[in-house]
This record gives sequence, C-alpha cells and structure tokens, in this order.
Amino acid sequence: MTNIHPQRRRGRPPKDASGQNETRQQLVRAGVELLTEAGYSSTGLDAILKRVQIPKGSFYHYFKSKEAFGEALIENYNSFFKAKLSKHLQVLPQQPLQGFYNFVDDAIAGLEKYNFRRGCLVGNLGQELYTLPAHYRQLLNDVFSEWQKLVADYLAAEQKLGHISDKCDCQQQAALFWTGWEGAVLHAKLQQSAEPVRQFSDYFAAILQN
Amino acid sequence: MTNIHPQRRRGRPPKDASGQNETRQQLVRAGVELLTEAGYSSTGLDAILKRVQIPKGSFYHYFKSKEAFGEALIENYNSFFKAKLSKHLQVLPQQPLQGFYNFVDDAIAGLEKYNFRRGCLVGNLGQELYTLPAHYRQLLNDVFSEWQKLVADYLAAEQKLGHISDKCDCQQQAALFWTGWEGAVLHAKLQQSAEPVRQFSDYFAAILQN
Repeated sequence: MTNIHPQRRRGRPPKDASGQNETRQQLVRAGVELLTEAGYSSTGLDAILKRVQIPKGSFYHYFKSKEAFGEALIENYNSFFKAKLSKHLQVLPQQPLQGFYNFVDDAIAGLEKYNFRRGCLVGNLGQELYTLPAHYRQLLNDVFSEWQKLVADYLAAEQKLGHISDKCDCQQQAALFWTGWEGAVLHAKLQQSAEPVRQFSDYFAAILQN
Repeated sequence: MTNIHPQRRRGRPPKDASGQNETRQQLVRAGVELLTEAGYSSTGLDAILKRVQIPKGSFYHYFKSKEAFGEALIENYNSFFKAKLSKHLQVLPQQPLQGFYNFVDDAIAGLEKYNFRRGCLVGNLGQELYTLPAHYRQLLNDVFSEWQKLVADYLAAEQKLGHISDKCDCQQQAALFWTGWEGAVLHAKLQQSAEPVRQFSDYFAAILQN
C-alpha cells in the first residue's frame, strides 16, 4: 500500500453521466462478484484490484479501508436486490402468486448463469459473521428487515385479493421465507442444481394457499 | 513450516485408552471450534496450533496437509452430529414429534451456550464452497444425504404411528427440513436469538401434522 493518493491531490476524478464515478462502480462490481463467491475474509484487496486493473492508491481514493469497502458492497447489493424484489413482486389480479414465481424464476436464472458459484452476498457474510467488523451484524440484519418488509407487503396484497389463506400471518411468513431461502441457495450451490430452490419455493407457496 | 517431523522419526506417538491419540483429538476439536465460527479460508493453521499449544511438526505427523485436516474435521463433525440426531430422533408412541423437539431443544441449547457464535460446520463450509478443495463439495453433499436419511426414517416411523399426515412425502420433507434448518441457524447467528430456529421448527412441525 502506498501512502500517496495521486488522484486525491488532483481533486476528485471525473464523474460519468450518472454522477457515479466509473472506477468506483468497477470496484464495487468486482467486490460483489468476488464476495458472493468467496466471502469477505478470503477475498483480499489485491484480488479485487487485479480484476479491475487499478492501482491500490486509486482504491484508497474511494474507500478509506476494506471495512468501508465492505459497507459499500452491502449497500450496493441491498439496492440491487430490493430493486429486483420490487420489480418482480407485483400483484396480478388473475394470477395468484405470479409475482412470487417471477422472482423465483429470475433468481434461479441468476444461479444457473454463474453455474451456482455465486450465492447471496448477505447470506455469505452472515455465515462468516465472527470474522467481520462487529457493526456488520446490524447492517446485515437491517438488510433482511427491508427484504422481509417487501415480501410481507406483497403477501398482504395477495391476501387482500384472496390469493392466499386468510389465516396467514404475512409478517411471520415473510420471515420464514428468508430463512428457507438462504438455506435453499446454500443447498443449490452444494448440489449445483436449482432443485432445492424450486422445491422450497413450491412448498412455501403451497402452504400459503392452504 | 519445518520439513522435519521429529515425532515421525520416533515412531507413532502413544495412544490413549480409546485408541485415539490425544493430540490428534485436540487438533480436531480445536479445528471444529474455529471453523464453525470463522470458516475454513480465514482459519489459519497457526490459530489452531496456538489454541492447542503444539508445534507445527506435530500437526504434520497427523495430517499431511490443511486439506486432509479439513476432511478429518468434516468426518468428525458428521459422526458427532449423526450421534446427536440418532439420540434425539426417537419415536415415542404417546408423544407425537417429541423426538424432533428434543433435537431442536438440544440444538438451541448449543447455539445459546456459545452465544450464537458457532453455526453448523457443514453449512459454513457450504457457503465458502468455491474457496475449498473441489472434492469437499461431494463430501458435504454426502453428509447432508446421511442426515436427510436419518430425518426421513424418523418421519416415516412417526407417520406409521399416525403422528404426521399420511400425505407427507417423508423424503421430500426431510430435504426441506435441512434447507430450512441451515437458513434458520444463519438467521439465529445474525439476530443472536434462537427465535428463527424455534419459529422454523414450529412451522415445519405444524405442516407435517396438517
């Protein structure tokens, strides 16, 4: 690591049209990719820098530490995943739980695209919790709370249309969904097959409609 | 690392009464403890040797590499966990699913004992699969198959006594159990609470009886 950050001395680097610096975006993208495969502890900064072909000095222009970088990755992954959930979890009057299945199909396509190498960043970080900076625990719980709220709101809307049982406690079902989902993604990686995710999703949907 | 293994030159070290060498057992115990907290990639041999206070040369007397050591840890954890499952998953004629709840209660006591720092070794390794030796994937799948069989056999016995629904596909339910279980343990660690494990277990049991 060098103590000199040349770019800093020349002021902030140019921004692209979206107002986000392209190098920063590249770093975050590479970080998410590597961490969803290998986890935080075993992913060195060098591997990330090598992937995006930028010098260490530039990294420290954007992030003051690996810890701060990890926070940015969690934030980025959360935004990406919430957008995905919101896009798919739409209630369609004539098609009970179609939004749920749209999400599941999209997630399975994502797993298959990367040959089941990439899991869920938040699930991965949760597993290696005690090697992470202590305050990540709260960040990860907050992420799950947000995802849980999106699913609970969706289920409540499906319930209003009579698509799922009146007896369902939508908050509780949403919590159970994420519990099962993280386990299903783990088993999909192990078996290199979408079957555990498909099986869990069908099971979950059947219970909602019982 | 030294190339000389002094103990090897003096022949195998003495065995204890159980026929297992005490030093080897200490190494395996420390390895399981550290890996259930931190995972394989971020646990260096040095940390394990420091915990059991033995020199690196002695380690290489028992294990030819970290990879071989990891295999021994998976084997050891599997034996330990199968014994736990077999002990608890007993069918009691007057008490539907009592064996299941005995297992859940014991697992929760284990999580609480270590302040939710320790998860499931096999689940942890599954999350960091792509940083592990390639053949570990099959080892981990084999472990889950064995656990799944124990649960499926137990459920079939409960079904025979009329304790769970005739409609249950016991094999499928057993697979779903381990999917949900690994996710529930992850969420318990994140929330530092047994609630996700308890909630998932109650949900699973209720569905079996529906």
